[in-house]
Amino acid sequence: MAASGTLGGTSCPPTLANPSSWHMPPSPLQLLLERATAIEEDLAQGEDKPFTEVTHCHSGDAVATGHQPLAFLQQVAAICAYPQLLDDECVPADAKRRAGQILQHLQGGSPGAYNLEYVTSTVATKVARYLEQRDGGIPSDPRCIVPCSGTAAAVVDVVSLVVDEAAAQPTGVLVPVPGPPRRGAAVGLAGAVAVPYPLAEERGWAVATEALRRALRRARARCHPKVLCVVNPGDPTGHVLSRQNMEEIIRLAAEENLLLLADEVQQERAFLPGRPFLSFKRVLWEMGAPLASTVQLISFYSLSKGVGGGGYRAGFFELVNIDPSVLRCFYTWGLSVYPPILGQVMLQTAMDPPLPTEPSYPEFEEHRQALRQDLAHNAQRVQEVLGRAPSIHLQPLHGGARAFPRIQLPPRALCQARAQGLEPDVFFCQKLLEATGLVVAPGSEFGQEGGTHHVGLSLLPPAEVLERGLLTLTRFHAAFLREFS
Amino acid sequence: MAASGTLGGTSCPPTLANPSSWHMPPSPLQLLLERATAIEEDLAQGEDKPFTEVTHCHSGDAVATGHQPLAFLQQVAAICAYPQLLDDECVPADAKRRAGQILQHLQGGSPGAYNLEYVTSTVATKVARYLEQRDGGIPSDPRCIVPCSGTAAAVVDVVSLVVDEAAAQPTGVLVPVPGPPRRGAAVGLAGAVAVPYPLAEERGWAVATEALRRALRRARARCHPKVLCVVNPGDPTGHVLSRQNMEEIIRLAAEENLLLLADEVQQERAFLPGRPFLSFKRVLWEMGAPLASTVQLISFYSLSKGVGGGGYRAGFFELVNIDPSVLRCFYTWGLSVYPPILGQVMLQTAMDPPLPTEPSYPEFEEHRQALRQDLAHNAQRVQEVLGRAPSIHLQPLHGGARAFPRIQLPPRALCQARAQGLEPDVFFCQKLLEATGLVVAPGSEFGQEGGTHHVGLSLLPPAEVLERGLLTLTRFHAAFLREFS
Repeated sequence: MAASGTLGGTSCPPTLANPSSWHMPPSPLQLLLERATAIEEDLAQGEDKPFTEVTHCHSGDAVATGHQPLAFLQQVAAICAYPQLLDDECVPADAKRRAGQILQHLQGGSPGAYNLEYVTSTVATKVARYLEQRDGGIPSDPRCIVPCSGTAAAVVDVVSLVVDEAAAQPTGVLVPVPGPPRRGAAVGLAGAVAVPYPLAEERGWAVATEALRRALRRARARCHPKVLCVVNPGDPTGHVLSRQNMEEIIRLAAEENLLLLADEVQQERAFLPGRPFLSFKRVLWEMGAPLASTVQLISFYSLSKGVGGGGYRAGFFELVNIDPSVLRCFYTWGLSVYPPILGQVMLQTAMDPPLPTEPSYPEFEEHRQALRQDLAHNAQRVQEVLGRAPSIHLQPLHGGARAFPRIQLPPRALCQARAQGLEPDVFFCQKLLEATGLVVAPGSEFGQEGGTHHVGLSLLPPAEVLERGLLTLTRFHAAFLREFS
Repeated sequence: MAASGTLGGTSCPPTLANPSSWHMPPSPLQLLLERATAIEEDLAQGEDKPFTEVTHCHSGDAVATGHQPLAFLQQVAAICAYPQLLDDECVPADAKRRAGQILQHLQGGSPGAYNLEYVTSTVATKVARYLEQRDGGIPSDPRCIVPCSGTAAAVVDVVSLVVDEAAAQPTGVLVPVPGPPRRGAAVGLAGAVAVPYPLAEERGWAVATEALRRALRRARARCHPKVLCVVNPGDPTGHVLSRQNMEEIIRLAAEENLLLLADEVQQERAFLPGRPFLSFKRVLWEMGAPLASTVQLISFYSLSKGVGGGGYRAGFFELVNIDPSVLRCFYTWGLSVYPPILGQVMLQTAMDPPLPTEPSYPEFEEHRQALRQDLAHNAQRVQEVLGRAPSIHLQPLHGGARAFPRIQLPPRALCQARAQGLEPDVFFCQKLLEATGLVVAPGSEFGQEGGTHHVGLSLLPPAEVLERGLLTLTRFHAAFLREFS
């Protein structure tokens, strides 16, 4: 491949092209969104369509879909951004007190400095205290906390530490299918090979250890599997793993000598009281010796999936049974380099929220609860409406921000899709968009077992938007079945 | 290597160790800073030392050394962080107006959303207009601007696009010596090989193209050199390249088919009126056809080195003679992923500062000028004081935030250093710290030609701190020469 699109276009010395890392086609969802934008422009210019607006039911971005970040976090960040606000009457006193404390830990009294010590000491300590509380008192060592600027880049960094470039075989990283978009690409960027393993849809998207072992056995012909990624609560699958399943996964990691990477970024979004989120660290600890002190685990947390937002680029990961001296390389050698400080200020505040005695407490708690209630309400409606659709199958939803229903697609649709060089689910989503203006994510954005077809449906839109989306989706799907049967 | 420090410590499956990427020793400066912290603790506990405090003259962090970010930028960021401040009397009206405009472009009206379109459209357009003004009207295409979260990670991303993993030979990246710390490590993280080339100290740290060609020729035995990194204004060398030298570099890049990576992050710090900063883009453009339309160039800008601060993690790079469709991979495939939005808000504001008619203009301009004047004043004093020291040689300073004087070290010091397994400049800096409490950066932090020894001296401390540091350094060096001669 060469020509346009290469680093250099027509005048490009061919040596600069790099097919492996950037000649990737745009993702199916990205193409769909580009088309949706074009349609919106057509509508704005008065073009006649069978609908009057584009409805977005695909996004995982809570803030973009209308969930404002918690006001207390915003206030503390604003004061740290412009410390003169400490003398301002318009900001609540407890936010000023909190920001004043944080500013004392910032070099030059400003989030404009790199503030490495603030991050590795002050923030890491607050995070460790928060994790101890979350896990019922299981100790957390601040030296094992790495504040970072989000999970996407951190996963690349962590995997790159495990890759042994001098080894004969490449390093393998087991990733769930379906799973968060582009996780496989991240693994590739780190110089490793992604080894997909299927989740057991009919068992509520549990990790089936027999399927995992099968994937492992096959992968050993082409790579050396060293890392097992698990996503809990599941994305896009909306499930929360049971303790029993987590124990099976841990035992398998121990037997197969795998580093466990637990993507737990959706933990604040476990909305089903009967299926609470348990951290892998807690389950591992409660399994006792010898596993509790030997299985290596790295767990990821993100402010973007809870009370904050992705635009702040704040998160952390915790190392379990890993020598904390490995931490040094994250800051010395350009890995997970220096996270943005205003994001870390918000992360620290989220880890150390207003106390019940503070005036901001009621609003903070109410807002925090409301986020989960909105998700629970939307999940409930998705299950009710799709449960009545005869050719749509949805597993129970426990947490996260998406549902991943399986949709039946008739043979003639598969043929037509193939003729157009499209995945059948992409074909369906394109038809849906053109006919109704509704955007849902094609299942292939997340991966799915061969021969099955899904759509990714966001639980984040306002209830009335989701309601409209569900009605449109089920009606269109029924008509689609008739049209292509 | 194994044992402590490996990913996993004593319980570590040996397969998880990765000597190539993280078994690197801490950097010389890092060790020195750890020792400085220990000394500060000793002093705090009343220990008797020949000095009463540790003096830091090593840091490149402007905000940490007391240079506050511009108030207007802080105000706009604070309002965007907490938009209720739009109704607040305490924030200047023009900052509110500016923030109000920006908030209209943010999804959900908040920097908490990922805001990809804001970044690639609104911010990129402001940046392009700023660059056109900077370069005397040479056009800049917003589609060729990639806003990012800082140069360190962006360099890794860009180089990783050039690496061809399937090729027989690894990709080579030419990096200047001396140069910014850990640039070689960044190149390694991207899967390429760093090829050092020496700057010509006696010619004011110019790029000597004959030395560059020599480095190229030698490198071809072990890799395929595809990229040439240039740093202007120089770091830690404090020089600004002449137009003539830049033209030579461009011609060489064209002849040798190299992609030019111009680290121009110190451009706001060119403080010598007689040696203004010229962008590589401008010089290339003004060379005319055929070079102007064929040489591939990527130029880096960082808010951290100008009017903002590193903790905001904001910057961008511009692609010249590179097809803008390459941009897509930065956002689709996890490269330079989603920068923090509050940093981009500040970047946009810096690119589009208050107009002369706006009330915040005088303070903004005064503050901006003061930063450069402080640097110019400190540079002047460094040149005066070190110019009188007989065994210290300093090239003229034109810009940037550091001076890099060469220091003579007597043979007996070299022997003792060798006996302790230390680089001689590290040995000197350690002795300096223990005897006087002064921290300067060892030259080996930045690289230096074999047999020469330097120290990196920050131009950022308050004038009186720097004055004390210079006196201490020259006195100690004179005594050191006597002691080890």
